Amino acid sequence: MRIALDAMGGDNAPEAVVQGGICAARDFGVTVQLVGQPEAIETELAKHKISGLHLPVIAASEVIRMDESPAAAVKNKKDSSMAVGLRLVKQGDSDAFVSAGNTGGVLATALFKLGRIKGVKRPALGTIFPTETEEGHCFMLDVGANTDVRPEYLLQFALMGHCYARQVLEIPSPRVGLLSIGEEELKGSILTQEVTPLLKRSALNFVGNVEGKDIPTGLADVVVTDGFTGNIYLKGVEGIARAIQTILEREIRSRPLALLGALLARGAIKALRTRLDYRNFGGAPLLGVNGVVVIAHGRADSHTIRNAVRVAIQASEHNLVQTIRSGLTEYISMNGSG
Amino acid sequence: MRIALDAMGGDNAPEAVVQGGICAARDFGVTVQLVGQPEAIETELAKHKISGLHLPVIAASEVIRMDESPAAAVKNKKDSSMAVGLRLVKQGDSDAFVSAGNTGGVLATALFKLGRIKGVKRPALGTIFPTETEEGHCFMLDVGANTDVRPEYLLQFALMGHCYARQVLEIPSPRVGLLSIGEEELKGSILTQEVTPLLKRSALNFVGNVEGKDIPTGLADVVVTDGFTGNIYLKGVEGIARAIQTILEREIRSRPLALLGALLARGAIKALRTRLDYRNFGGAPLLGVNGVVVIAHGRADSHTIRNAVRVAIQASEHNLVQTIRSGLTEYISMNGSG
Repeated sequence: MRIALDAMGGDNAPEAVVQGGICAARDFGVTVQLVGQPEAIETELAKHKISGLHLPVIAASEVIRMDESPAAAVKNKKDSSMAVGLRLVKQGDSDAFVSAGNTGGVLATALFKLGRIKGVKRPALGTIFPTETEEGHCFMLDVGANTDVRPEYLLQFALMGHCYARQVLEIPSPRVGLLSIGEEELKGSILTQEVTPLLKRSALNFVGNVEGKDIPTGLADVVVTDGFTGNIYLKGVEGIARAIQTILEREIRSRPLALLGALLARGAIKALRTRLDYRNFGGAPLLGVNGVVVIAHGRADSHTIRNAVRVAIQASEHNLVQTIRSGLTEYISMNGSG
Repeated sequence: MRIALDAMGGDNAPEAVVQGGICAARDFGVTVQLVGQPEAIETELAKHKISGLHLPVIAASEVIRMDESPAAAVKNKKDSSMAVGLRLVKQGDSDAFVSAGNTGGVLATALFKLGRIKGVKRPALGTIFPTETEEGHCFMLDVGANTDVRPEYLLQFALMGHCYARQVLEIPSPRVGLLSIGEEELKGSILTQEVTPLLKRSALNFVGNVEGKDIPTGLADVVVTDGFTGNIYLKGVEGIARAIQTILEREIRSRPLALLGALLARGAIKALRTRLDYRNFGGAPLLGVNGVVVIAHGRADSHTIRNAVRVAIQASEHNLVQTIRSGLTEYISMNGSG
C-alpha cells in the first residue's frame, strides 16, 4: 500500500510530518510517499535511521500556507504538495492522501483533483470522539467542510457516516443520531426539523436527536450535523479538555500533598490523557470524494501524523470509496433520489 | 428585594427548589416568593427551619411539565406557576422570576406576560462559562432561546451581552467575540460573515471571531452566537466535563496506588470540580424582556437554585432591564437602527 503524505502541511511541517511518516512506514509496513520540497524533506530524513523503509520523495515546489485562501491556492499553486499528492491518488499511484495542512486548501484541491463520488452533493469531514465506555467511540460528520447545508446534504452525511462506521469501524448496524438541542423531535432548528423525516424514512438505524452531552455516553455511533456546528463542538470539546488539564495541574502544583498524590495516581491520569488525546484518533477522513483523503489537525505532531496514516490505511483496506459509491447507488435505487 | 421562584419547575421540584429558595432567603436576606401548588410547597417547607425567613407561598394551581409544548402550555395553563410568577414581576410585586422548569415554557410565558423591551427583536438566554484563569469567566448568548436567527439579532445579542457584562459582571469594557470556526474573518457560516461587518461598525469592543477552544482561555468576555450553536456548545462542554470525571474515576478505582493518590490530591480535585460545576453559576438570565428572568438547569439541585436566585438579585440590583433599554436606545439613536 502507498500513502501520499503532504510533507509541507501543518504547523509543524516538515519536521513532525516527515518523522510521523517514518513511524508509519515502519509500524504499518507501508510505502509513505513524502510529497513536497525535496531539499526540506531530505534534510529531515537525514536525521533518522530509515534503511529498509519505503519513503520515496515526490517533488512539489509550492506550499499552501495555513492562512492562505483555499480558492486562490488551488488556482495559483498548481505544483503545491496538495495538488501533487492528490494527483498521485487520482492516477492510481497512491492509495490515499494525508495532510495536516490548510483544511480549506485540502478540501478545495481534493474536490478539484478527485471530484465527488457520483450522486454525492457535498463531501463531509468526519472525526471520531472518545466515549466514556472502554474502546467506545462516536463518529461525527460534518466537522468543518460545509458551514451552510441543506436537509438533503445531512441525509447524505448520515448515509456516508453509516458506510464508514459499518465498513471501516466495523460496527454492524451503526446507530445514527442527529445533533440537536433536545431529545424531542420538535426541538431544534428549522434544518434539523426538516431533516428528521428524511432520516426516519431512510433505511438507516436512526435513533433520533442527540445532544452534545449524549456523545460521550455513546448514545449513537454516528452523529450528523452541519460543518459549522460540528466544528464548534469539536473545538469546544478540545478546549475544555485542555482547560481541565490546565486547571487541575495548577491546583495540584499549589498543594504539596496533592503533588505526591498526582505522582501516585499518574497511571490513571495518563490513561485518561490517552483516552482523550485527539492525536490517537489521527485524522478526519473526507467522505464523498473519489479517493481516500485524511485531514490531520493543523497542530499535528509526529504521533498524530502516524495515526492519520493509519486511518488512511484502514479506509483504503476497507474500500471506503467503493463502499460509499455502492451505498449511495443502493439508496438512490431504493428511494429514487440521493 | 422579592424574588418569585417557580416552586414547581425542574426535574427535582418541588423538593430541591423549595430547599434552594430557603437557602437563598437565608443567605441573601431576600424575600423568596414560592409560587406553585400550596400543599406541595407547605409539605416541603415543613421539613426545614424557616423561622425569621421571608418565604411567602403564592398559589398557582397548574404545572407546566418539562416535556410539554410551550405554545400549548401558555395558551391552556393560565394559572401555571410560570404565569403567576411572571405576573408578579409584571405587576411590580416581584423584582425577578427564577425557574428551573421547561425552558421553552418560561420563554413563551415571559414573552407573553412581560413582553420585549422596546426595540428588542429577540430575547436571548445568556450563560457564564468558567475560564482557565482564576475568577475568569465568559458570558455566552444565545444558548437556546432562538434556534434560527438573523444577523441583526446577533448584533442585538452582542449589545445586550455587553450591557450585562459591563453592568452586572462589572467588566469595564467587555471584549465581544463572535463564535465561529476560524479566527480569520472569511471563515464561518453565511450568518457569521454577514454579522461581522455589523459588529465591526458598532461601538462595541469587538475582538473578532472566537472558536470554541478560545472560550476557556478567556479570549473574550462576551461571546455571541445563535441559540442552536450556543446550546450545542453548552451541552457539549457539560458532557465532556462529566465524561472526564467518569473516566478518571474508573481509572483511579482500578489502581490501588492511584486511589491513595486521589485521596492525597482530593483538595485539588475538589477545587477543579468547583471551578467546573455549572451549579455555581446558577442560572441563565433571559435578556431582552421587560423584567428580570433567570432560567436554571432542568436538573437543578438546591445549590443551583440558590445560585440562580443570586443571579436574579444581581441583575435586579444592577437594573438590568433599564440598562439594556438605555443601551439599545443609545445605539439606535447613534446608528439609526436596532
